[in-house]
Amino acid sequence: MSLKLYYSPGACSFVAHAALELAGATYEPVLLKLHRGEQRSAEFLALNPHGQVPLLVDGPNAISQIVAIVLHLDQRFPEAGLLPPAGLARTRALETLLWMNNTVHPTFTHIFMPQKFTDDAAAQASIKAHATQQYRKVLGEIEHMVAHKATPWLSGQQPGALDAYALTLLRWGGMVGIDPNALPATWALAQEFAALPAVARAIERERLTLNLYRPQS
Amino acid sequence: MSLKLYYSPGACSFVAHAALELAGATYEPVLLKLHRGEQRSAEFLALNPHGQVPLLVDGPNAISQIVAIVLHLDQRFPEAGLLPPAGLARTRALETLLWMNNTVHPTFTHIFMPQKFTDDAAAQASIKAHATQQYRKVLGEIEHMVAHKATPWLSGQQPGALDAYALTLLRWGGMVGIDPNALPATWALAQEFAALPAVARAIERERLTLNLYRPQS
Repeated sequence: MSLKLYYSPGACSFVAHAALELAGATYEPVLLKLHRGEQRSAEFLALNPHGQVPLLVDGPNAISQIVAIVLHLDQRFPEAGLLPPAGLARTRALETLLWMNNTVHPTFTHIFMPQKFTDDAAAQASIKAHATQQYRKVLGEIEHMVAHKATPWLSGQQPGALDAYALTLLRWGGMVGIDPNALPATWALAQEFAALPAVARAIERERLTLNLYRPQS
Repeated sequence: MSLKLYYSPGACSFVAHAALELAGATYEPVLLKLHRGEQRSAEFLALNPHGQVPLLVDGPNAISQIVAIVLHLDQRFPEAGLLPPAGLARTRALETLLWMNNTVHPTFTHIFMPQKFTDDAAAQASIKAHATQQYRKVLGEIEHMVAHKATPWLSGQQPGALDAYALTLLRWGGMVGIDPNALPATWALAQEFAALPAVARAIERERLTLNLYRPQS
């Protein structure tokens, strides 16, 4: 059945984009320009009422939620090793993937879109400052994990979903004044992952610069 | 291998607690009193540095993250049907479970613990008011799902993780002025789920009152 991925450059949809390339899947990538509000078009909302990327369309079925998409692709392309196949290694990888998704990722959302949490401008500034400190801390936790991992990749024996998410979260850090060079193990992992031919195709399609760091004024 | 669940009454650890009972597992339930800060004891932080429940200890391994715990228990007790076994039904259930975990649950956190997002009291009040509106909206989405489900339970053919999470999220709604009777399909599902003998054991152990509604002053 046909596969189609709706993505936005540099969003967490990159995790699905890299996964599809790593799996060697045949799929149609569809770019949604979030700054133009294309995620709120009637056509897209009919597929995903939450108006979010990534969205994977598998035959007649539209699937949202990056972790659900990863698990779906892992089910569809088990040989790709996007996650460890079973047992405690799989549970550990999922534990980290879920923490990235429900803790690290939303911490960045509080920096990037504080207006999602209050209409008050002063409160937004306060949320943003608080989340920036937290984001530095959680990227530090990822650095510790990467520096102490017992497998070649953060995902396990094969490059996979966790490596793609770590790259994405580190890249976002650069946008808010966190120098990737201050997180050397994660930065080395991101560069190594980005250099894989499959991943490089996704990076080229999204036209991503890995290091977005600039000191905050 | 031995199983131990660290839980706090009414927290999202209820999802793991109900799952263990539904699976007929032999396990040791361990109550952590969050209001006494027991999650920040040196003993507990050694098991889970994030200081959060639920924590499942499976033999020598401590596993955090409710969705990772559900997937782990589903792997360990496949016959329990905590999630649909495979295919699109499984993907759909995971999509909803992940949305509950990364969107509905944290919306409640903004109401219940606004101090996690800013130290400023006025900003906390603003966050809380905004999140209360959002929480009403997302519980409305759950109501729509429950009212239109094509299977006997929200989890699928068997009662499972999604039913336990829906009960938990609805119960939290009562604490912030959302009357469960205004969400009749979800309220009926929660009551039906709570009445299952396995689930009733978890509810009795946690001493949970299902309907916590009181109008907000």
